Amino acid sequence: MDADSRLSRWENRTEVPLFVTSLVYLGAYAVHVLDPGLPVAVHDALRAVIGLTWSMFVADYVVRWRLSGHPFLPGYMRHHFLDTVVVVLPLLRPLRAVHLYEVIQRRRAQPRLSLYGRVIAYAGMTALLLGFSASLAVYQQERGAPHATIRTFGDSVWWACSTLTTVGYGDVTPVTPGGRSIAAVLMFLGLALLGAVTGSFSSWLLQVFTREDEKPPGGFPGAS
Amino acid sequence: MDADSRLSRWENRTEVPLFVTSLVYLGAYAVHVLDPGLPVAVHDALRAVIGLTWSMFVADYVVRWRLSGHPFLPGYMRHHFLDTVVVVLPLLRPLRAVHLYEVIQRRRAQPRLSLYGRVIAYAGMTALLLGFSASLAVYQQERGAPHATIRTFGDSVWWACSTLTTVGYGDVTPVTPGGRSIAAVLMFLGLALLGAVTGSFSSWLLQVFTREDEKPPGGFPGAS
Amino acid sequence: MDADSRLSRWENRTEVPLFVTSLVYLGAYAVHVLDPGLPVAVHDALRAVIGLTWSMFVADYVVRWRLSGHPFLPGYMRHHFLDTVVVVLPLLRPLRAVHLYEVIQRRRAQPRLSLYGRVIAYAGMTALLLGFSASLAVYQQERGAPHATIRTFGDSVWWACSTLTTVGYGDVTPVTPGGRSIAAVLMFLGLALLGAVTGSFSSWLLQVFTREDEKPPGGFPGAS
Amino acid sequence: MDADSRLSRWENRTEVPLFVTSLVYLGAYAVHVLDPGLPVAVHDALRAVIGLTWSMFVADYVVRWRLSGHPFLPGYMRHHFLDTVVVVLPLLRPLRAVHLYEVIQRRRAQPRLSLYGRVIAYAGMTALLLGFSASLAVYQQERGAPHATIRTFGDSVWWACSTLTTVGYGDVTPVTPGGRSIAAVLMFLGLALLGAVTGSFSSWLLQVFTREDEKPPGGFPGAS
Repeated sequence: MDADSRLSRWENRTEVPLFVTSLVYLGAYAVHVLDPGLPVAVHDALRAVIGLTWSMFVADYVVRWRLSGHPFLPGYMRHHFLDTVVVVLPLLRPLRAVHLYEVIQRRRAQPRLSLYGRVIAYAGMTALLLGFSASLAVYQQERGAPHATIRTFGDSVWWACSTLTTVGYGDVTPVTPGGRSIAAVLMFLGLALLGAVTGSFSSWLLQVFTREDEKPPGGFPGAS
Repeated sequence: MDADSRLSRWENRTEVPLFVTSLVYLGAYAVHVLDPGLPVAVHDALRAVIGLTWSMFVADYVVRWRLSGHPFLPGYMRHHFLDTVVVVLPLLRPLRAVHLYEVIQRRRAQPRLSLYGRVIAYAGMTALLLGFSASLAVYQQERGAPHATIRTFGDSVWWACSTLTTVGYGDVTPVTPGGRSIAAVLMFLGLALLGAVTGSFSSWLLQVFTREDEKPPGGFPGAS
Repeated sequence: MDADSRLSRWENRTEVPLFVTSLVYLGAYAVHVLDPGLPVAVHDALRAVIGLTWSMFVADYVVRWRLSGHPFLPGYMRHHFLDTVVVVLPLLRPLRAVHLYEVIQRRRAQPRLSLYGRVIAYAGMTALLLGFSASLAVYQQERGAPHATIRTFGDSVWWACSTLTTVGYGDVTPVTPGGRSIAAVLMFLGLALLGAVTGSFSSWLLQVFTREDEKPPGGFPGAS
Repeated sequence: MDADSRLSRWENRTEVPLFVTSLVYLGAYAVHVLDPGLPVAVHDALRAVIGLTWSMFVADYVVRWRLSGHPFLPGYMRHHFLDTVVVVLPLLRPLRAVHLYEVIQRRRAQPRLSLYGRVIAYAGMTALLLGFSASLAVYQQERGAPHATIRTFGDSVWWACSTLTTVGYGDVTPVTPGGRSIAAVLMFLGLALLGAVTGSFSSWLLQVFTREDEKPPGGFPGAS
């Protein structure tokens, strides 16, 4: 890995501020979408906050590229695929929270999550963040559409839950081309991510039951 | 494991009475929800039974914490995660039936279920209990709602089946915020649990067919 | 295995006649359900054929139990679980076709299907037979129901396809308690069986691609 | 493998022209279906292009069979199952793009995709091509049907997305027997293919997280 000391130092110093920035970004975007009744000046301010925080993520990405030693951007992008996705879709930025939690645990010399636990945490949180941002974006598309069945943000969250889990009731569905495009992305990504969560949970459960076979009886499985 | 002799003795003694208590709890809750036409006094009695049985589960949980040697409750809660879930959602309490069955089998020196069989039994029974309690709770939410499509308990069970299996017809769906919140929990938990059941069934089937390769021919697979 | 020579001889002799009997059973049941316009005498004859063929399956089951050396029926039922299921649900009887195919292949000294291929064949055929019999049974329940959306046998097959794959459009769904009960069974069994098919297909695909790594290039994967 | 030098030479020479041919085929079919308002002469020309390109695929298949050394066609068909499928369903022909990409990578001495990456690429691209061709074919069936809910090609693509991912909203569904038959094929094939994609993605994610355990900390997983 290209983790020379200057890159590590940069990451150690920017970790917490950038996480706070990502929460500010998410909050500003959510308020912007969910409360269209606010004065125009407030919406302009929110847009400015969204633009500013985004440019901070881009700056962080560029600095990490320069410190990584990769001479060309495309090569860096391929090797840091998920970092690149997060710069393009900054709504996923709070995902670094899981990483931050691990860094803190390591400093306090506490054990990290198990392998399955980490896959579940990353994939599950990505799915939830995707679902939340898709709810916001689809709500923005559908709000004013004629014959729309998604009329409140609650409808949109309900639709996102039934889509992510592939249940798909169809009582509320997007009807605009924009809303349907976002929905299609959510379907395919959600299928892959929740498939990973389900598979890891299944493996973890098998592991728990296997381990229990070697222990004296008592209590529920997992009660180690 | 922290299974010192006093904890084991407590568990051996409370196993059967607590299982009966959990059936009483489930029955009282079901009658309370399903028959609103009963006299007020009966509903008061049912509510008293529900409260009393729940407090017995909490007492059992506290005793097991004190006997476990864990000095602090949060540490115990983390290590006995499923026990904690069962105290908060006592409708899942009858799950201990599988454990009870195993304890009895061991005393009679009979073989326990295979690894896959136990994962299927635990995860499948948890899914069924979740589905049953979600049917009850959603029915309670939707019963009086205007434009509700879930109008009878049968509708609610039908809805829970199509949700747990992720089929999701959408012919009957919750329309109230309360009903939809319960439904979202059921979707995500059901997806994980039935994923574990399906995965274990698939692994078991592969095992059966592998084993059959080493046997003389005849009969169906599994016909050992 | 308890495959002594008398049991093997019985199975060798009854294999083909019982397979033909199972096709007769399936055909008689299908005609009985699908063409209610036939004269009453024909329907009586069909019912007689259904009863007669079923009793032959029961007789075969009893003979195999007596020849197996198991002294008690419950013990035999537990060890020959799938045989027992097939006696109770004789619509699944044609499943033995896969077994028959293997017996014939072995006599002609041809290779049997691979492990994954056999799991896919058994689980997939069981799912298809389940779907076909559920279509027949649901159609019988819904045909005369008021407000039914399943009005033709084609609707019923379309509904079974969307249910087995957990797609669940919900454009046609059972509305009677009987139809919904059959549907719930189909959902849970179909989920497990098609999960096994999908998992085996996935493993087989990985195997094909792994094997290809060790070969000179050319052609599609699987082009061995 | 039967990859003698003449077969390899044939494949090296026809690789690129046949890929271009497959794109021509797909384009001609899509224009033929999507723009029924074109003059009759144009449609005749498109039909001629479709027939001509198809016959080129058949010719290529026959040549490869003759060069392979298999004396009989059925034996060749069984060993080159996917090639055979592609000749029957030429809409899947562009799949060879993945193969072509690999051949080019190998000539430039660049590493091939990882095992999971290749399964995801093949199965995912097959699913997308299947979905696209099913959208075209279902649109052709439903276009003029009374009470059809699929009225535009956009509806058809939206329906294919929700079907492939097994979400199945049911807001737009085929109503004609032809459309429903194509839909049933898409459901079963899509379930198997996207199951393989999901399973491989899940395994890849576990691999990434396992590998990360052996590295110094920093960055997102996958940031190798």
